[in-house]
Amino acid sequence: MKRYVLVYLSVFLAFIAMMWLIVLRGEQLVKHTTAEISKSADQGMWVQLKYNLEHPLSKLLLQIIVILVVARLVGVLAKRSGLPSVVGEMFAGIILGPSLFGWLLPEASAYVFTKGSLQPLQFLSQIGLILFMFVIGMELDIRKVQHRAKAAVVISHASIVFPYFLGMLLAYFLYQEFAATRTSFLSFALFMGIAMSITAFPVLARILQERKLTQTPLGSLAITCAAADDVTAWCILAVVIAIVKAGGLIGAVTSILLAAVFVFLMLFPVRRWVAKSVDYLSAKYPNGQPVVALSFFVLLTSAWLAEIIGIHALFGAFIAGVIMPQNALFKETLTNKVEDLSVLLLLPVFFAFTGLRTEIGLLTEGHYWWTCILITLVAVIGKFGGSFLAARWVGQDWKDSLSIGILMNTRGLMELIVLNIGYDLGILSPEIFAMLVIMAILTTVMTGPLMDLVEFTFRRRNSTKAEAAG
Amino acid sequence: MKRYVLVYLSVFLAFIAMMWLIVLRGEQLVKHTTAEISKSADQGMWVQLKYNLEHPLSKLLLQIIVILVVARLVGVLAKRSGLPSVVGEMFAGIILGPSLFGWLLPEASAYVFTKGSLQPLQFLSQIGLILFMFVIGMELDIRKVQHRAKAAVVISHASIVFPYFLGMLLAYFLYQEFAATRTSFLSFALFMGIAMSITAFPVLARILQERKLTQTPLGSLAITCAAADDVTAWCILAVVIAIVKAGGLIGAVTSILLAAVFVFLMLFPVRRWVAKSVDYLSAKYPNGQPVVALSFFVLLTSAWLAEIIGIHALFGAFIAGVIMPQNALFKETLTNKVEDLSVLLLLPVFFAFTGLRTEIGLLTEGHYWWTCILITLVAVIGKFGGSFLAARWVGQDWKDSLSIGILMNTRGLMELIVLNIGYDLGILSPEIFAMLVIMAILTTVMTGPLMDLVEFTFRRRNSTKAEAAG
Repeated sequence: MKRYVLVYLSVFLAFIAMMWLIVLRGEQLVKHTTAEISKSADQGMWVQLKYNLEHPLSKLLLQIIVILVVARLVGVLAKRSGLPSVVGEMFAGIILGPSLFGWLLPEASAYVFTKGSLQPLQFLSQIGLILFMFVIGMELDIRKVQHRAKAAVVISHASIVFPYFLGMLLAYFLYQEFAATRTSFLSFALFMGIAMSITAFPVLARILQERKLTQTPLGSLAITCAAADDVTAWCILAVVIAIVKAGGLIGAVTSILLAAVFVFLMLFPVRRWVAKSVDYLSAKYPNGQPVVALSFFVLLTSAWLAEIIGIHALFGAFIAGVIMPQNALFKETLTNKVEDLSVLLLLPVFFAFTGLRTEIGLLTEGHYWWTCILITLVAVIGKFGGSFLAARWVGQDWKDSLSIGILMNTRGLMELIVLNIGYDLGILSPEIFAMLVIMAILTTVMTGPLMDLVEFTFRRRNSTKAEAAG
Repeated sequence: MKRYVLVYLSVFLAFIAMMWLIVLRGEQLVKHTTAEISKSADQGMWVQLKYNLEHPLSKLLLQIIVILVVARLVGVLAKRSGLPSVVGEMFAGIILGPSLFGWLLPEASAYVFTKGSLQPLQFLSQIGLILFMFVIGMELDIRKVQHRAKAAVVISHASIVFPYFLGMLLAYFLYQEFAATRTSFLSFALFMGIAMSITAFPVLARILQERKLTQTPLGSLAITCAAADDVTAWCILAVVIAIVKAGGLIGAVTSILLAAVFVFLMLFPVRRWVAKSVDYLSAKYPNGQPVVALSFFVLLTSAWLAEIIGIHALFGAFIAGVIMPQNALFKETLTNKVEDLSVLLLLPVFFAFTGLRTEIGLLTEGHYWWTCILITLVAVIGKFGGSFLAARWVGQDWKDSLSIGILMNTRGLMELIVLNIGYDLGILSPEIFAMLVIMAILTTVMTGPLMDLVEFTFRRRNSTKAEAAG
């Protein structure tokens, strides 16, 4: 053993010595170039650390870390106060933006979220949304919508048409002061309409789950309405984007026609082809990698085509999710692989990115705040009123109609996605963007307490009735 | 029913009519701005499609789609020809770069991989590598290395020291012609040394798996050596990067000291804290999301700190993987969530990114090719020779010693990662980068056939012996 160690060490040292010699000889070599070899003076630790801190990759990592920590903290706080954690994450975004972090600590904020360094963050947030919309599409089971067609479709349509109308009416009064400078009235009005009519399918699903309502008639009706809403609203949004981008009649019509062809191809031939290929591949490779690769390919291609046609990549991702085979095991595997990474890592990035754009500080004058309140009121009256009346009309009782109205009024994450699209298209000015973000948060926050109120009122009334009867 | 439909339709139409009126009235509104409202003339379909195609997001999606398809096709082809699919993906990268795609179809290539549009792709590939190194770190079980210490450590050290020495010697002859213009000899030599001594732990693991050798004494010795190699080589690399970046003695020493403190903190207090937190969180939240969030947090913070200290983010990601608790279920859940996305979606992006930098077309003159052959020979002699001799010395028989030499000679993906770091640090010129990439691919491709050869020779010899004995 001792001999081993001795031989080992001496060989080792001999090599080190030889390497040392090579370096000594090599340092005397002259390079045949005019450029001087960078023999910067010893920079000292601080200069070097500062340099490393400014490297784009470390900047991006720092941004993600700050976002994750704040999102998690505020999310936990929100949950403790009885709000759904998504509300916490929406708040976290606002907190990180110029409205709070940038206002309290302008230097630290400018350091972490330097203006020029936000592009990688934006790409990450977009890829996160693409994955997220894909999961949303997968969770949506079209057959369920078809089953309980009448009630759901009527409620869903009413809960879109009515707020859409109110949104356009509101646009008439807000256009001159609040639309972005180069927007036509048509674009602005179409967009305000859509901003009023969005329902947050995922947030709604989570609220129903937390209240253990998913399996009740009310829960399944609400989830079906929200699903129908989602599909309808995203189709309308695709049309609106096509109209806005095309800037003219022929362009818009071609975009819409192309979009229709695209949706048709996805829903029929591509869907069948994907189903067959998934069956074939999962039988052949049980470990599942080729199936996952195929799904990514369909997702990316669909998103790309949708973006090219002029109806946003997110719509393509959503459709790709919708056409994935209904096979439960397959969906679970895929969701499992994609959901955590997108929900835990990338959605907070999206919220933060939204927050960085939301400048509540712009709303300095009183009448801005009145406008903000007006917008929120119109949003609530439109969405809550529309779905409540329709639910009554198709024969739901008072309690369920009220509950459906309240649930459909939840804007949540989906609204933020739509608002960002409007901002990117140059339709919404920073002021109205901030107001609409506040509206989205308020309508999401109010859902829980309002549901409690309805529950409480009807429980009391029922028990009073029961007492009177007894 | 009929009444329903009539009422429904008339209400619906009434709303549409009102919206139409709003638009007609609204179009006459005048905005109080000097900027003209963009009423671009009808652009026509083609102009619009072209515009959408140039959008950064659609560019990125197109790049990823092209990369995935080519990687998959070449990967399948490689598998059919009996090569490990990672070799196919390495080839796919080269094919997409200027060496083939850019040479055959310069316009299409310039269109898909426009120079200015590569930054998002680079960030994606770096995030993919961070996730990948994290998984590699998790798969590595330090306790195993400790168990079979003697043989593995001796082989592993020999298989690093010997090729490292040869690499530095080679650097002495290549420095004047091939080092990037502003590199000092020390940096270049240290880097050539590391480039010669890398072993591809993941590729090696996959090759052993495909040949069903993982459970044999040879397989477990080889995998342990490769793991020890990985840890050692990445530590040396961290030191080399610190020296290169610091550009002076004091800076380098501080970096190395900081790195040592960082590794110590990660291996002891942080490791214990993570283990406790994971136990606590998995008991409290069985669905696992907080645990995954915690792991992401540790991973990102570790990568960020490593980058700040001046020893690459990838080293931080690797260490973060190493300190994750050994709990099998936890590791499986986490690997499951991260691996497919990184291996299927992001690693091909990294390979393509490497390929885009590899300009085999630069090697125009004959003596470049001779140099390339020389580099490959030195690499093989160093790594194969070093580990073969050490294996013989610690008492392995001829067959196993040869096999270990061949296996350790596999460079694979790890080498490409190291080469890219060298390129980014401005140490390797494009010419020597291309040569080293070729060397990495050749040493990876030769592993399979050489293993077959050893197997074949010894089987024949054994059967001859058996015949002679019989």
